[in-house]
Amino acid sequence: MADKVYRASTTAPVNIAVVKYWGKRDATLNLPTNSSLSVTLAQSDLRTLTTASCSASYPASEGDWLLLNGEPSDVSGARVQACFRELRARRAALEAADPSLPKLSTMPLHIVSENNFPTAAGLASSAAGFAALVRAIADLYELPASPSELSLIARQGSGSACRSLFGGYVAWRMGGKADGSDSMADQVAEASHWPEMRALVLVASAAKKGVSSTSGMQQTVATSSLFQERIERVVPQNMAVMEKAIQDRDFAPFAEVTMRDSNSFHATCADTYPPIFYMNDVSRAAIRAVEQINAAAGRTVAAYTFDAGPNAVIYYLEKDTELVVGTFYHVLGGEIDGWKNDAVKGLKPTTSLDGGVASLLKGGVSRVIMTGVGPGPQKADEHLVAEDGTPVRR
Amino acid sequence: MADKVYRASTTAPVNIAVVKYWGKRDATLNLPTNSSLSVTLAQSDLRTLTTASCSASYPASEGDWLLLNGEPSDVSGARVQACFRELRARRAALEAADPSLPKLSTMPLHIVSENNFPTAAGLASSAAGFAALVRAIADLYELPASPSELSLIARQGSGSACRSLFGGYVAWRMGGKADGSDSMADQVAEASHWPEMRALVLVASAAKKGVSSTSGMQQTVATSSLFQERIERVVPQNMAVMEKAIQDRDFAPFAEVTMRDSNSFHATCADTYPPIFYMNDVSRAAIRAVEQINAAAGRTVAAYTFDAGPNAVIYYLEKDTELVVGTFYHVLGGEIDGWKNDAVKGLKPTTSLDGGVASLLKGGVSRVIMTGVGPGPQKADEHLVAEDGTPVRR
Repeated sequence: MADKVYRASTTAPVNIAVVKYWGKRDATLNLPTNSSLSVTLAQSDLRTLTTASCSASYPASEGDWLLLNGEPSDVSGARVQACFRELRARRAALEAADPSLPKLSTMPLHIVSENNFPTAAGLASSAAGFAALVRAIADLYELPASPSELSLIARQGSGSACRSLFGGYVAWRMGGKADGSDSMADQVAEASHWPEMRALVLVASAAKKGVSSTSGMQQTVATSSLFQERIERVVPQNMAVMEKAIQDRDFAPFAEVTMRDSNSFHATCADTYPPIFYMNDVSRAAIRAVEQINAAAGRTVAAYTFDAGPNAVIYYLEKDTELVVGTFYHVLGGEIDGWKNDAVKGLKPTTSLDGGVASLLKGGVSRVIMTGVGPGPQKADEHLVAEDGTPVRR
Repeated sequence: MADKVYRASTTAPVNIAVVKYWGKRDATLNLPTNSSLSVTLAQSDLRTLTTASCSASYPASEGDWLLLNGEPSDVSGARVQACFRELRARRAALEAADPSLPKLSTMPLHIVSENNFPTAAGLASSAAGFAALVRAIADLYELPASPSELSLIARQGSGSACRSLFGGYVAWRMGGKADGSDSMADQVAEASHWPEMRALVLVASAAKKGVSSTSGMQQTVATSSLFQERIERVVPQNMAVMEKAIQDRDFAPFAEVTMRDSNSFHATCADTYPPIFYMNDVSRAAIRAVEQINAAAGRTVAAYTFDAGPNAVIYYLEKDTELVVGTFYHVLGGEIDGWKNDAVKGLKPTTSLDGGVASLLKGGVSRVIMTGVGPGPQKADEHLVAEDGTPVRR
């Protein structure tokens, strides 16, 4: 009889920051130049499902491997290796303390991972991917580690991944120690604290971004004359106002800080030498649209934010769906992918957008994603590795 | 016999800043938050011709008037009035000191002004306009005022106009006094000190800009968290490096500061709340084109700068005309307006631009202007007011 195949599966969510992570003070440990804060998005719309497995029957010659969306993925990189090393060390400590435990830390890891959203969504999936990888292996190894402790490990895989180990509203505290042992995530509030938060993603381009965020943020740190001001004064203030806005469930300051911090981040990119531009004319049209929607509503009902790419993420509250989604739905038309029919059915066009803005959006937005705040990683019964250790074909 | 019509005519140049003026510390006196530095452009390509006239025979009922490009222009605004008041006061002082002088300060002013470049060029003409207005009236009044003294007056009409009272390379010193008496322009170097400086303007849009610079800069001062850093540290350093680069005729640092300062200025616009965007995708393509031209040349041969609009101004040295103009000429094609045939004839396509960049430029640049560094205001023999006081029809 073959050796047992140990398996654990988990899902992990995507998160979109409202106070941005941009800049590393240590590129190896992924230690940031500033704290950041994000909203975890619902996994029914955007999630990674990962199964981690190990077995004494796995040929040592193959070593560890990772199958990502059906394709073999290189695990020899320093970041994946750091996660494997940290998790194995913790398992080895358990095994040393209790000799009755199977020596999982010595077995090759076979990992299979799948996203439920098309790459065409143009959303960075590395955060959900590394969060799921770390959570799945931690479950496989039955580590007694808290999400914050696991966030220390996921951070070394992909900085923003540390925030995907929690649901709801999540802060990544930059920390101050050289070894990074205090640079971890914690939960500002559960999704249930403010469950009405929604997000509409306008996918302006599926094209791979010009400058990778890893290289882009290092260029900004090295060359932007305005960057120090952002990390020393602007971000700490944005973090404080944002945390209070979330505690108070107060959308107006949440929205203003979200928009201001996105602007500040992209301003430091434009001040980088040579300048980095992630937004395009379609992105800027989305900003004008949000301004026009808020002006027409007479109050702040929508907030834009942009990561290292042209896609707009627009936060709003469920009660304002018609004001926000209704406007975009009627401008973009029902033909493009991503509308939830039950949600957009019967929505009236509330704000009539300026003609130039409307035509730029109509011509430049290829699809939308309708989602909202959601929970953190979930243990899954669905395994992507069969009991005999073979990847599940789907 | 009718009373004599006194006349004086002058031309004044356009200037394009390489260290930008953005922000007023006093909106009435046009006192800036930072010093700035510009290159005066040749008047054969871009200039305002203005005739100032006065006569006891001009009906007092009409008061002062200004004919701008054939259209009556409002002179009741505070800025034009400030210039008239300051100049009349200086003339009145001369008349008080020498009773034999005609009392020109008491006569209505009739002013006729024309630009030699189409409004379609999308270039701010207020600098040349106010410089010519002030210089022409000062000549009419035979004021013994230096260009720097006149720059104090022109500054109150339009801030950057103070730099158009000099040729070559011109600094506007922000000054520190509340009454603005030390906020004036001076000449860093004559055009003849570094006559090889050329400028290629890529007109990306003739459309009127969204946010006027007067209102835009005040929004930036009021809301940008990064702006203080720019005016306190970034600009003073850029001014120092730029002045030395001009003294040394050293294009590489001239180019780097020009590009960095333009980036810094537009970064503070993007950090304004709500954000201000003057550049569009065509502007950004021009930046990439300059980067590709410099990379292909293996040295810095071109520098971009953008004012409060999408047009790119590209500085280069005469010896590098083929590397810079040759590349743009072959991408944009000879059909669009503005190429100087003697200058582009026989230019080879030197750098092959990235396809996306080339198509954005080809589709978005409507005309070009080929010019270079030039002299300051010139006394003109051509009058736009006839001896009998009637505007000259042309």
